[in-house]
Amino acid sequence: MTGRGAVMDDEGFVMLGRMMVALEEVEGCPEFAALIPEVRTNLVYARERARSREDVLAVDGRITVVDGRPKAAGRIRFGASSHMARLVIELARFDPSIRAGIDFANTPHMAAWLGEYCRTKGWTLSVIDRRGEPEAVQETEGASMPWKVAEAVRAAGGRTPKIFYETGAVGKEAVSVLVGRDPVEVADQACEIAREYHGRG
Amino acid sequence: MTGRGAVMDDEGFVMLGRMMVALEEVEGCPEFAALIPEVRTNLVYARERARSREDVLAVDGRITVVDGRPKAAGRIRFGASSHMARLVIELARFDPSIRAGIDFANTPHMAAWLGEYCRTKGWTLSVIDRRGEPEAVQETEGASMPWKVAEAVRAAGGRTPKIFYETGAVGKEAVSVLVGRDPVEVADQACEIAREYHGRG
Amino acid sequence: MTGRGAVMDDEGFVMLGRMMVALEEVEGCPEFAALIPEVRTNLVYARERARSREDVLAVDGRITVVDGRPKAAGRIRFGASSHMARLVIELARFDPSIRAGIDFANTPHMAAWLGEYCRTKGWTLSVIDRRGEPEAVQETEGASMPWKVAEAVRAAGGRTPKIFYETGAVGKEAVSVLVGRDPVEVADQACEIAREYHGRG
Amino acid sequence: MTGRGAVMDDEGFVMLGRMMVALEEVEGCPEFAALIPEVRTNLVYARERARSREDVLAVDGRITVVDGRPKAAGRIRFGASSHMARLVIELARFDPSIRAGIDFANTPHMAAWLGEYCRTKGWTLSVIDRRGEPEAVQETEGASMPWKVAEAVRAAGGRTPKIFYETGAVGKEAVSVLVGRDPVEVADQACEIAREYHGRG
Repeated sequence: MTGRGAVMDDEGFVMLGRMMVALEEVEGCPEFAALIPEVRTNLVYARERARSREDVLAVDGRITVVDGRPKAAGRIRFGASSHMARLVIELARFDPSIRAGIDFANTPHMAAWLGEYCRTKGWTLSVIDRRGEPEAVQETEGASMPWKVAEAVRAAGGRTPKIFYETGAVGKEAVSVLVGRDPVEVADQACEIAREYHGRG
Repeated sequence: MTGRGAVMDDEGFVMLGRMMVALEEVEGCPEFAALIPEVRTNLVYARERARSREDVLAVDGRITVVDGRPKAAGRIRFGASSHMARLVIELARFDPSIRAGIDFANTPHMAAWLGEYCRTKGWTLSVIDRRGEPEAVQETEGASMPWKVAEAVRAAGGRTPKIFYETGAVGKEAVSVLVGRDPVEVADQACEIAREYHGRG
Repeated sequence: MTGRGAVMDDEGFVMLGRMMVALEEVEGCPEFAALIPEVRTNLVYARERARSREDVLAVDGRITVVDGRPKAAGRIRFGASSHMARLVIELARFDPSIRAGIDFANTPHMAAWLGEYCRTKGWTLSVIDRRGEPEAVQETEGASMPWKVAEAVRAAGGRTPKIFYETGAVGKEAVSVLVGRDPVEVADQACEIAREYHGRG
Repeated sequence: MTGRGAVMDDEGFVMLGRMMVALEEVEGCPEFAALIPEVRTNLVYARERARSREDVLAVDGRITVVDGRPKAAGRIRFGASSHMARLVIELARFDPSIRAGIDFANTPHMAAWLGEYCRTKGWTLSVIDRRGEPEAVQETEGASMPWKVAEAVRAAGGRTPKIFYETGAVGKEAVSVLVGRDPVEVADQACEIAREYHGRG
């Protein structure tokens, strides 16, 4: 009868700690509430050389808005994300330093503002038009994410983008995803975006 | 310095109590987790002759899936829903006995099964094809819900449907909404659907 | 397969609603955090003619202090309190209008202040010295509460006190209990005490 | 505008991760619920060479019983414990490898069983009779914990005990404290005690 601690390695403990701090950063940023999409936000953190969603920490039940503030629905655990986990795993094939990501809402107005913001930051923003996804890709289980990531890298001229802007599609809400090396870094950057966008002139 | 209790009337207290019991019914039904859409589920309960969202109780942050089970993100409070609140208010213009509703995911497979289930129950199911929404309606703030409800009632031959099936659209997930007189009733019915769908042959 | 709603009567729904509002009153009063004892606070509400703890609503896990503010650990449910439930049931034998109660910390300094506060309010304060409890009473399962309540009523000259001050004993923290007709009333009164005590000259 | 992550060092991240895993171990052990005292349980983890409560991680609001299971009231954070934090800091003066602790209820029956359990484990159990605390110690702010720890080490013949059994006193509940190097270790050991005590012959 051994506890979960028995199978957790040192990398896992540090990752959990960083995720906790990153999550509290997001929860402590009221301006971020305005950027949480209908499908909610997730924050993910992949092990080095992650291969499956079980190698990726995420917020169980995602981050939603309660009482006007961002709030995690459940605990941080490995395996709690599917979509965002696959995105980060796929990206790491192009750039192994990418291990964390956070998604947020994207209205047409926000999209224009974000383009300008990325320019001032020197960040690459890549737009993925989901309506361009070939039917053969859509119909093959698991083929969609590799296609999207390859498309985004191609659209960014071969560089791994800092922010992805996925357009909406039938049944799919438009969202942006910001990626980086570490959940604390991406949480800081996402919260800065939320504050800047909130206080824009 | 008076508390919130000072402004709460007897109708409000009974409504809160009924919502709490209904919410625990949903949280206690693990099969319902499979029916919670990406945009999460809400459960709403409108006062008699409700006019605005402030007259409608809902779950703050909606109901999401945590640890494989339905879980309310926040507390039950008046004003916590916008979309579902307007749906029930609009419906009550056609049938004032409708005061509660709950929404859930709708895959193509579920849609077919649900049609059959409604027939055995003698319930009216009405499909709203959001792609048919006239542009003038889409562009007028607040015009969408009256159009959708009128469309659903028209499609049901003038009767208020028991279940609405909203098709997806660009940026919008397909969802079903079940309505009734009381949140305990709609929670019971939604959980029965979840259990029957889970155990289908 | 019927839900919990099936067995809940109208009295139960109203009681749940009133408890929810009362609990939010307490949670919304930061000054009350300073009055939450080590054993935490409970808020209880008994049905008319309650006979057992199953007839009494209380906060599961009680109310504790999180992030400097009062916070309910779990949900409101029948049967969630033992000690406070029995106190209110026993009191109702003397005065059936007593159906709710809340407990809070009592330091020696608070005790003196509270005596003065009760005088200005015209409330009866009764001190129960637990050290005076006869051994025969202590050793008989379930005999302690009737003894304490009878003692408190006797000490108050036959009247049901508004506030009980239970002194500490070996293994037992000193607490005060404020009682009344309704949880919203007792929450309002307890929060007023917390604010007045916090802002005392 | 830098986030909390900016001031958190690597030791802090690992500590947070270990605490999270340890806490989930406790929450996942239903038998531990029976050992949670009225004053609730805390789980603490001190930095190396900790000097003040701000160097000690603990559960904000402690661990209480909700729905029959152990449940943390709030988040894990530095500074969230006073009593248990000082106990571990004081112990580390005698044995710097002691950095974590958890407390649990102690009935007379449990005390006898625990003595036997410690013998089979080869653990030192030390009883602190709080009634023996000199008045001069009781009245000097902050003097009580050093006295208690020195007393416990003395009673254990100069060795740092594995488990402390603090007897009750006026206003103070009897509790036991189990200490060790790491919160995962102490959580595992406390949960094993809970399971063994639950299933005792």
